[in-house]
Amino acid sequence: MTTQTLPTFQDVQAAAQRIAGHANRTPVLTSRTLDEQLGARVFFKCENLQRIGAFKFRGAFNALSRLDAAQRRAGVVAFSSGNHAQAVALSARLLGMPATILMPTDAPPAKLAATRGYGANVVLYDRYTEDREQIGRDLAQGEGLALIPPYDHPDVIAGQGTAAMELFEEVGELDALFVPLGGGGLLSGSALAARALAPRCKVYGVEPEAGNDGQRSFRSGEIVHIETPRTIADGAQTQHLGQHTFGIIRRDVDDILTATDDELVACMAYAAARMKLVLEPTGCLGFAGARQLAPQLQGKRLGVLVSGGNVDLERFCSLLGSGQGLV
Amino acid sequence: MTTQTLPTFQDVQAAAQRIAGHANRTPVLTSRTLDEQLGARVFFKCENLQRIGAFKFRGAFNALSRLDAAQRRAGVVAFSSGNHAQAVALSARLLGMPATILMPTDAPPAKLAATRGYGANVVLYDRYTEDREQIGRDLAQGEGLALIPPYDHPDVIAGQGTAAMELFEEVGELDALFVPLGGGGLLSGSALAARALAPRCKVYGVEPEAGNDGQRSFRSGEIVHIETPRTIADGAQTQHLGQHTFGIIRRDVDDILTATDDELVACMAYAAARMKLVLEPTGCLGFAGARQLAPQLQGKRLGVLVSGGNVDLERFCSLLGSGQGLV
Repeated sequence: MTTQTLPTFQDVQAAAQRIAGHANRTPVLTSRTLDEQLGARVFFKCENLQRIGAFKFRGAFNALSRLDAAQRRAGVVAFSSGNHAQAVALSARLLGMPATILMPTDAPPAKLAATRGYGANVVLYDRYTEDREQIGRDLAQGEGLALIPPYDHPDVIAGQGTAAMELFEEVGELDALFVPLGGGGLLSGSALAARALAPRCKVYGVEPEAGNDGQRSFRSGEIVHIETPRTIADGAQTQHLGQHTFGIIRRDVDDILTATDDELVACMAYAAARMKLVLEPTGCLGFAGARQLAPQLQGKRLGVLVSGGNVDLERFCSLLGSGQGLV
Repeated sequence: MTTQTLPTFQDVQAAAQRIAGHANRTPVLTSRTLDEQLGARVFFKCENLQRIGAFKFRGAFNALSRLDAAQRRAGVVAFSSGNHAQAVALSARLLGMPATILMPTDAPPAKLAATRGYGANVVLYDRYTEDREQIGRDLAQGEGLALIPPYDHPDVIAGQGTAAMELFEEVGELDALFVPLGGGGLLSGSALAARALAPRCKVYGVEPEAGNDGQRSFRSGEIVHIETPRTIADGAQTQHLGQHTFGIIRRDVDDILTATDDELVACMAYAAARMKLVLEPTGCLGFAGARQLAPQLQGKRLGVLVSGGNVDLERFCSLLGSGQGLV
């Protein structure tokens, strides 16, 4: 793969025009109490307040917008049990395309219902005996559907980069930006925006400690594959970075940090109690990274990308109950 | 009492200038899913994202800002076990005044700690054997402190009105505005803003069904006193409206609605699950009112004042667990 195939900041700008009026321009929130505690000024870009409750809508809508008329009629297919499924389903509905979403038979009923609620055709598969990627490819080839991958696609990356672009537009230069890292779509898009709009800003990816393939890939220079990690950050249980995302991350990101599940619970509890925001565990990764580095960043201006807030309330409360003295 | 003593919209405008840069200009959030469900467009003014987690900061800061130099040196006193206590404590700290807050001995430790954390001198009283109003008056007279009432004060009302003023500035005309009602500070201030900025907008107060003194007062034309109502909306457990607040409400408000605790829990669950926001039960009153009237307001533009988000996470989760099939 050559770097010529990587998306650029111009692609992020073009994505911003495509999603304008469809995606929410999410608010940037701050907490003066937190700033006092950390000794730094923290700006939270709240993609938990994005449509479908996560940044994924940006990339999916951008990618679907670029399909030609024939492909729009044929429709799209995606496999996901998480936010990407709803992002593709809603984007397809808004753009008048049929969408097929592959979801595991044991996906939470609420997520199945939500995806069907957006008008998508949900195809169930057994995650223990069937290969979703194969089923997806078969559907794409057999029925002429466009397969929309969750992160390793230039249009998806460019769309995700619009969140950080809006953050810089709103608050100006930052000293450091902390971004959740799963497959790298949000991180690589954010890095494109940071390099163009805030060249001196350090960009950090933050992934679950139990699944530190991104950190190992970044440090070794080769994409590392791992088993599905055991972590509460279900949006970052990816097994490896993508070719496109890694190409940008190794070039434009400053370092990859990790956060434990306990740290994520502490951030969830803080966000709920002090900032009145519901964050999903994965959504807290950037916040956890900022807390880690704050002692070295006294007096600085930090950006935190909150990636999403999609967590069942029962699970939310159960996770909060598992933390002690964290608020 | 004559109407000449009532605050006006000019007082709200003056308050907005005093609190600028101190209070958060809170975001107005929307949910397209909710809009589809209700058949109306709903704009939520999110005072749960205000400093101290509730609109009360606006009125307290405005009232304290108007004290003269001698009074500032002497300090202020307030009695409250809720958001007003923290609002006065934080405002006093920001303005460099001593603050004494009377709180019941059985107030939640987190609230005592938060109030002390803002630097206030917390004086405990036994809510079963002591009269907090008498203690407050004694402190005010004996030590020359300015007593800052929670709602029945022109400067408090004017400050609270800035939230609705910001809402109208941001979204323009509305067909109806739904405002939580306890003692009437937020409702009367909101009504002043609505009458000036959106003359055709209907203004509704929404209070707990168990404590419908406001509705009875509005309909009878006389302030009705009740026993402390049993409701989860602890911020609206007031026993009667104030002279100033009632004077404005009877003149400028269109009607008073009531909401049951079950309705408030349903709104809390919806806000958490779909909008990713933590709301306290009292903070849901406006939302509950909008849901009630939505069938009669198809295609209209509705404003909802979210008054606050200060609820212990344990209680939050316990309340959400009590509702069935509400999300």
